[in-house]
Amino acid sequence: MHIVITGAAGFLGQRLVARLLARGELQGQPIHRLTLIDQDEAPLPADPGEVDVESLAMDITEPGEIDIVLDARPRVIYHLAAVVSSAAEADLELGMRVNFDATRLLLEGCRERGLNTTRLVMASSVAAYGGELPAVLDDMTALQPQNSYGTQKAMCELLINDYSRRGLVDGCVLRLPTIIVRPGRPNAAASSFASSILREPLNGEEAVCPVPTELTMFVMSPGKVIEALVHAAEVAGETLAPFRAFMLPGITVSVAEMLETLRQVAGDEALARVRHERDPQVEAIVASWPARFETRRARELGFSGDRSLREIVEAFLDERG
Amino acid sequence: MHIVITGAAGFLGQRLVARLLARGELQGQPIHRLTLIDQDEAPLPADPGEVDVESLAMDITEPGEIDIVLDARPRVIYHLAAVVSSAAEADLELGMRVNFDATRLLLEGCRERGLNTTRLVMASSVAAYGGELPAVLDDMTALQPQNSYGTQKAMCELLINDYSRRGLVDGCVLRLPTIIVRPGRPNAAASSFASSILREPLNGEEAVCPVPTELTMFVMSPGKVIEALVHAAEVAGETLAPFRAFMLPGITVSVAEMLETLRQVAGDEALARVRHERDPQVEAIVASWPARFETRRARELGFSGDRSLREIVEAFLDERG
Repeated sequence: MHIVITGAAGFLGQRLVARLLARGELQGQPIHRLTLIDQDEAPLPADPGEVDVESLAMDITEPGEIDIVLDARPRVIYHLAAVVSSAAEADLELGMRVNFDATRLLLEGCRERGLNTTRLVMASSVAAYGGELPAVLDDMTALQPQNSYGTQKAMCELLINDYSRRGLVDGCVLRLPTIIVRPGRPNAAASSFASSILREPLNGEEAVCPVPTELTMFVMSPGKVIEALVHAAEVAGETLAPFRAFMLPGITVSVAEMLETLRQVAGDEALARVRHERDPQVEAIVASWPARFETRRARELGFSGDRSLREIVEAFLDERG
Repeated sequence: MHIVITGAAGFLGQRLVARLLARGELQGQPIHRLTLIDQDEAPLPADPGEVDVESLAMDITEPGEIDIVLDARPRVIYHLAAVVSSAAEADLELGMRVNFDATRLLLEGCRERGLNTTRLVMASSVAAYGGELPAVLDDMTALQPQNSYGTQKAMCELLINDYSRRGLVDGCVLRLPTIIVRPGRPNAAASSFASSILREPLNGEEAVCPVPTELTMFVMSPGKVIEALVHAAEVAGETLAPFRAFMLPGITVSVAEMLETLRQVAGDEALARVRHERDPQVEAIVASWPARFETRRARELGFSGDRSLREIVEAFLDERG
């Protein structure tokens, strides 16, 4: 079992590497080779065991660059490389090149080599939704993205579905909820606060909540996202028709519930570390993301979500140690 | 008012040219120039009056080809050039190049020249729908196309919407119902019979009906489609947000109703010219097209459909003379 991961230096990429190595097998076959791809060399795992892990610095938006990797005929490709929504919005050409053209090159590379049974797993996003949305979204809700990142992801979904329908590759695209609690520091993402208002107080630091507490979000823990990525490589291709992209089963939580969970887990002292300071720009973006989904497709395909916000927070604490 | 039409040699392109010349104005401004583009030179109208009509043979999938046209800063671009669904299914590369890449080149050309107020009107299709569809579709029904043509059109919709949202062009995409009654001869399209079972008997010829008579379709007359294309150039851009692609208000008719209308208009003798000979392939394709739509967006934007099947047939007879 040879697995390729693009965007392997990222948060999800690094966790996926660790999980795959811990698992040792995928699709019932022992993993013998892992190829990590990122624009700079992704860190190699400290203890790869018997697995041959290589890390390649590569610009996958350059035609031909990834060919040498595809020539090895990997069984599974995790395509996680992307520029984030703020960058895609700031630079249309960059977003199109990385988020769309690179996916197309990957699909064409698979097609040219007849990699029709190679499972291609891509991460899409809640940002692909937009417009006049119903109160509760489902698997047949239109994608009318109101940002370039979501547009590019939606186009990739269509293309991967078509290549899969034609039997040229075996694709599966997961639309990811907002991931909380991310480790590390706050970043420029509009969703950054959702991790920050839990992570920082739990670490004894201050955090800013830029949105009203009644605002709701659709969230999933990093652990469940990685579990979903593993499952996406194993779910039978024939069950993925007629459309190979769907929303993962996140849970709907309000900011108020997040803060109450923080209080339950770490006390009033932790809660007091959250300062409320509205940021209309962040609020507008986050409020535009749908928060209620009926995710029947994903559940029928065996994907599962977190049971509660409390479990999400406790998993973060366990992991942090 | 300078108007560009790609695919100008086609059925819709030629009718649109005639209608625009008959009208003489668009967006309240006199039309002084019409640029017709097709892979072979589109026929020039016999009587262009005061309008400067030019016909250019051009491969718009070649980067830079269309630049000379865009340099003239047209106010309206009708992008009707496409390869049809059977060709796009037979040749993925051809379909991607003509149906998707050419649209992207057009968008980039507009962006590079700052043609942000140029209205770009594209024709999309009912073929963009697919998958597990509800009984009645609406403006928020997901596009999960089950053919490459529909995939490419859906990708163009997303891209045109994003370029428009960013203020780089002023796009409007119309999803066309099945057009009946087309003039001319039967062709390879799966929908060809829908015109054929009316047109041929009305012309005293035999026709074959390859589907069960209870099958329903969503249809629009050529006249109403052209009216919609004209209106698409005139509808205010700010009313088109949040998503610039929508289904036109066709009418839902069964094949049985089509045959009954034929009988009412031309008698039992005409009806007897239709031979019933099932073709499972045609049936499978046509049955996969949704036939019931709630087209609120289009109606709110001022687009209108045919009042009845009888009117559609009578319009065909009037025109045939």
